[in-house]
Amino acid sequence: MFKQLSLLDKDQVKTLKDIAESSKFVDGKISNPHSRVKNNLQLHDPAAYEQSSKIMLDALMANREFLDFAFPQHVAPPMITCHKPGMNYGLHADSALIPLPSGPIRSDISCTIFLNGPDDYEGGALRVTHGEASMRFKGTPGTAIVYPSYTLHEVEKVTKGERLVAISFIQSKIRDVMKRNLLYEFNEVAALEGLNMRHENYTRMQAAQYNLMRMWME
Amino acid sequence: MFKQLSLLDKDQVKTLKDIAESSKFVDGKISNPHSRVKNNLQLHDPAAYEQSSKIMLDALMANREFLDFAFPQHVAPPMITCHKPGMNYGLHADSALIPLPSGPIRSDISCTIFLNGPDDYEGGALRVTHGEASMRFKGTPGTAIVYPSYTLHEVEKVTKGERLVAISFIQSKIRDVMKRNLLYEFNEVAALEGLNMRHENYTRMQAAQYNLMRMWME
Amino acid sequence: MFKQLSLLDKDQVKTLKDIAESSKFVDGKISNPHSRVKNNLQLHDPAAYEQSSKIMLDALMANREFLDFAFPQHVAPPMITCHKPGMNYGLHADSALIPLPSGPIRSDISCTIFLNGPDDYEGGALRVTHGEASMRFKGTPGTAIVYPSYTLHEVEKVTKGERLVAISFIQSKIRDVMKRNLLYEFNEVAALEGLNMRHENYTRMQAAQYNLMRMWME
Amino acid sequence: MFKQLSLLDKDQVKTLKDIAESSKFVDGKISNPHSRVKNNLQLHDPAAYEQSSKIMLDALMANREFLDFAFPQHVAPPMITCHKPGMNYGLHADSALIPLPSGPIRSDISCTIFLNGPDDYEGGALRVTHGEASMRFKGTPGTAIVYPSYTLHEVEKVTKGERLVAISFIQSKIRDVMKRNLLYEFNEVAALEGLNMRHENYTRMQAAQYNLMRMWME
Amino acid sequence: MFKQLSLLDKDQVKTLKDIAESSKFVDGKISNPHSRVKNNLQLHDPAAYEQSSKIMLDALMANREFLDFAFPQHVAPPMITCHKPGMNYGLHADSALIPLPSGPIRSDISCTIFLNGPDDYEGGALRVTHGEASMRFKGTPGTAIVYPSYTLHEVEKVTKGERLVAISFIQSKIRDVMKRNLLYEFNEVAALEGLNMRHENYTRMQAAQYNLMRMWME
Amino acid sequence: MFKQLSLLDKDQVKTLKDIAESSKFVDGKISNPHSRVKNNLQLHDPAAYEQSSKIMLDALMANREFLDFAFPQHVAPPMITCHKPGMNYGLHADSALIPLPSGPIRSDISCTIFLNGPDDYEGGALRVTHGEASMRFKGTPGTAIVYPSYTLHEVEKVTKGERLVAISFIQSKIRDVMKRNLLYEFNEVAALEGLNMRHENYTRMQAAQYNLMRMWME
Repeated sequence: MFKQLSLLDKDQVKTLKDIAESSKFVDGKISNPHSRVKNNLQLHDPAAYEQSSKIMLDALMANREFLDFAFPQHVAPPMITCHKPGMNYGLHADSALIPLPSGPIRSDISCTIFLNGPDDYEGGALRVTHGEASMRFKGTPGTAIVYPSYTLHEVEKVTKGERLVAISFIQSKIRDVMKRNLLYEFNEVAALEGLNMRHENYTRMQAAQYNLMRMWME
Repeated sequence: MFKQLSLLDKDQVKTLKDIAESSKFVDGKISNPHSRVKNNLQLHDPAAYEQSSKIMLDALMANREFLDFAFPQHVAPPMITCHKPGMNYGLHADSALIPLPSGPIRSDISCTIFLNGPDDYEGGALRVTHGEASMRFKGTPGTAIVYPSYTLHEVEKVTKGERLVAISFIQSKIRDVMKRNLLYEFNEVAALEGLNMRHENYTRMQAAQYNLMRMWME
Repeated sequence: MFKQLSLLDKDQVKTLKDIAESSKFVDGKISNPHSRVKNNLQLHDPAAYEQSSKIMLDALMANREFLDFAFPQHVAPPMITCHKPGMNYGLHADSALIPLPSGPIRSDISCTIFLNGPDDYEGGALRVTHGEASMRFKGTPGTAIVYPSYTLHEVEKVTKGERLVAISFIQSKIRDVMKRNLLYEFNEVAALEGLNMRHENYTRMQAAQYNLMRMWME
Repeated sequence: MFKQLSLLDKDQVKTLKDIAESSKFVDGKISNPHSRVKNNLQLHDPAAYEQSSKIMLDALMANREFLDFAFPQHVAPPMITCHKPGMNYGLHADSALIPLPSGPIRSDISCTIFLNGPDDYEGGALRVTHGEASMRFKGTPGTAIVYPSYTLHEVEKVTKGERLVAISFIQSKIRDVMKRNLLYEFNEVAALEGLNMRHENYTRMQAAQYNLMRMWME
Repeated sequence: MFKQLSLLDKDQVKTLKDIAESSKFVDGKISNPHSRVKNNLQLHDPAAYEQSSKIMLDALMANREFLDFAFPQHVAPPMITCHKPGMNYGLHADSALIPLPSGPIRSDISCTIFLNGPDDYEGGALRVTHGEASMRFKGTPGTAIVYPSYTLHEVEKVTKGERLVAISFIQSKIRDVMKRNLLYEFNEVAALEGLNMRHENYTRMQAAQYNLMRMWME
Repeated sequence: MFKQLSLLDKDQVKTLKDIAESSKFVDGKISNPHSRVKNNLQLHDPAAYEQSSKIMLDALMANREFLDFAFPQHVAPPMITCHKPGMNYGLHADSALIPLPSGPIRSDISCTIFLNGPDDYEGGALRVTHGEASMRFKGTPGTAIVYPSYTLHEVEKVTKGERLVAISFIQSKIRDVMKRNLLYEFNEVAALEGLNMRHENYTRMQAAQYNLMRMWME
């Protein structure tokens, strides 16, 4: 499923944009050499990558909504990418395994962190398909959208301005999206309504939640 | 898991005991010829069996607690059995398939309906083991106990009086006992606390319950 | 996932609208008495229901795209419903079990068949949520949209005109939406590209598809 | 896995060969019109089919080894087929669903019943592949071989004489071949060694077998 | 399921009681700050904890019955707790994840190690529920009881004397309790009866056990 | 399933045979002390083992066909074994867990690497059973055969000459042999036919393959 996060504050966004501005970008095919649809730029500066990804990774791991929704086990350090006019990233599926220095992780959830806003570029929407239906996302600076990696999705062609986002992939403790979503829903209801329940019933609800986790968690 | 049911009223119990008293019983090995541990009597009179099993089957299918707990798909018509002094039914596992005229059913849940009471006989407890622990049950007339068929269990030797019970087997729509119990718990909590929840959260809880059922129901 | 179907021709649509026009409608709560969000009208005329649902059921079972996508095992006869100005059907989850005269079916897939068009009413979109994202659908007459029953969805308030659709529920031979979609995708690729493959490889592909079906089909 | 059955006695084989001799055969493509590899003849005479398939179906359902090994839920009536010189049935996968008058069945297990013997024809072996390895079978009259339907297999070209067999498909109560085989093995060991075990241990073994069946049986 | 272990010898018990006597205990809420039902004391002395937990952890990992029954993958170092008169630990479910310095483990199995005996306190039984039935345990010094963490359980109020136990949690290689128990039963039967079987059958039994492990082990 | 690999070149084979010739071998029971059927010799020289196993392990991890077929997660360092006249390794199942210095691995796949050839010995075939059928393998020097560890298999008695092979065990990322084989087949077809497909369909095929991996990969 989809969830929008309020992830970064203004200062963090500014820092990240400053890093992006002063760093070298290269053709995004460097990390997907066989791709016929990837047409963007990505940050290519070890120090800038380390600094920027740490800010965003820390923000993710401190974001209650993200943790509750994604049950993250491994999170790839977010990578800043840029689409200039004429660039797009054609319809594609994210690879099941994302190579990281610490070993490959399974991409259950994809994450786009918006560093500039809908007014800064034309086109460039993230379009996620669900069979024959699709949804378009252009977030405000500092927000993020997380969505299932199994979907076919694309970044539409930027026709004006520049699209600056960071992307990440999450391996979840709950692999199956239906199960992950079910557990999230039970947890949310229990968190929102727990204080309104008799303690005896809250205990039963909590035991059932724990037992779903026991059954499904990797 | 285990659940005790208040199943039959006094009149029903009396009718069933009258039927038992006026009917022929035979060696219980008739339906388990290879058993080395079955040592009891069971009703052997087609008309009496039809009449008595219908009363109890109807009572089960009208019992809200039973329906909510067992998610019954098929229920074997209960059969009246009797243990006289010296008789027992040694430790055994219920067969996975129970033959019925309409075809075999899978025994997920076993059910003992008590027709007389703890004062009517000595010994004769239903003992259900859980690994090295065990529980003993002797119910009052008209009550029933349902328990998982996968357990090793026995009827201890009756040393005095007569033990009159009926037994049945249930194939559940939710085969796995852990899943069945989880669904029961979520349903119970929602039923008990639904009116205390905001409607929006109740809707989310309900959707999650439906989705667990979609996932697990046979 | 979602799929749009070209289901009914103009004559069929006209026949169905004529039936609707000349038949009695009642409060939709008749089939969901406890619903706090259902606020629409539904056809309540046995002969009209039989005639109209047969047309649509036959159309579904003759629609190649529907059969390939949904792997239908049971299909509920479509029921014509109507939203007049001020009516909506608030956010809800479809019940896991849909009672039918022939016994309950599991609702894996929901189907809305559009009998009039986007110009005939204002508001009244079918809105399907996916977590915090959502999609709106208003189809042209004779088209249908199928979507997963596990989603929270609603019919937005009609503010002008009248919304005339029929709704149905499908129990699929492939219960899990991810598996159903995977099988559909492999089948589509094989159908579209089979003639371009060497026969030996097509045989291997076909064997793998059969084996997925063996593994997943109910 | 594979199992050879001693299925038919001499008289039954003779009756079946007499039926085959006096009946009409047609191109086997009649039941697989799109096949590019099927090149054989099959019985095409309703009365002969009914008579012959009944003999073989009854023999299967009375064969203890078959019942214990295959856990059959549905068995397709065996169909007599014939390969004359020059005929083969190229490498193929059995379709997942076999249409029968009573509705389609899932082909978990395939069965070839040999009506004449290895001396009656040259070539014509049933070759079953397992990845890059393969096994060849030519049985004596009245024997049968059952093997997993998921395998790629072929009937090699007959170069001399005539190959007369019947083929059938079985939907098993235990869908997965690994689970089916495991259950068969535990059952066999218990049957062969049960009398050598202490009764207490035999009871535990039996309970465990029942519980595997509860877990896996459809 | 449940298993009782003869875990510690007299000297080990004495050493542990000496450690407990000379160490500081604090309110058990320190490790479950939000619990509304925990009312006990637990050891709070790093050196004493390290020394005592090592004795018990080593004893568990050297206990053949424990290893065969629990298939332990991770075991939390046992923590000594104490209930004084008036203290109880109300009905609760163990959390699915137990935080440890080396990372969280999944609590599949709970373990109570008794350091003093039933005569040393009144009340204070460990009561484990199974739906509406329940079992009470008070072990002798040095024994332990292991039971499924998914159960609702409690420590009843101590009314006199002092209850001294250690508790631990085990993540099993076989997550599901039904599967773990099945594997244990097959292994036990094979161990107890293997020498009575013909070698050929023992080999088949052993292969089947290995294959269950291959299927189920994490 | 089965796959034959062209694994080692002539120089590597020569090096390995030289190592074998100049090293000490001991009774193979050293690593299976309770086996009643193992009757062979195995290399027992730490330096020789380290050197020889590294050559073969590196060859496996560089072999594209092996990687595509086995989805290896852990591979046991191959161990050279020798059967002299009169030696065999009776029918047995490979243990589910293979102890390694780095911890036990699950044996999903077994691997025999042939160091000398069919002309160097009589008898000594690797015979792998599949129920009542079986296959025999004697490879040429430098080739390897991989096959499922769950099978009962044996090395037949060597009657003349000497059989020199190395054996290894692989824990696969795809535990279940049916799933592993399905994924392999889809991957092979996509690799062989991808360039013949329209890009849009290739993308769909690839997404489906990724999603199978997401579903099944450990």
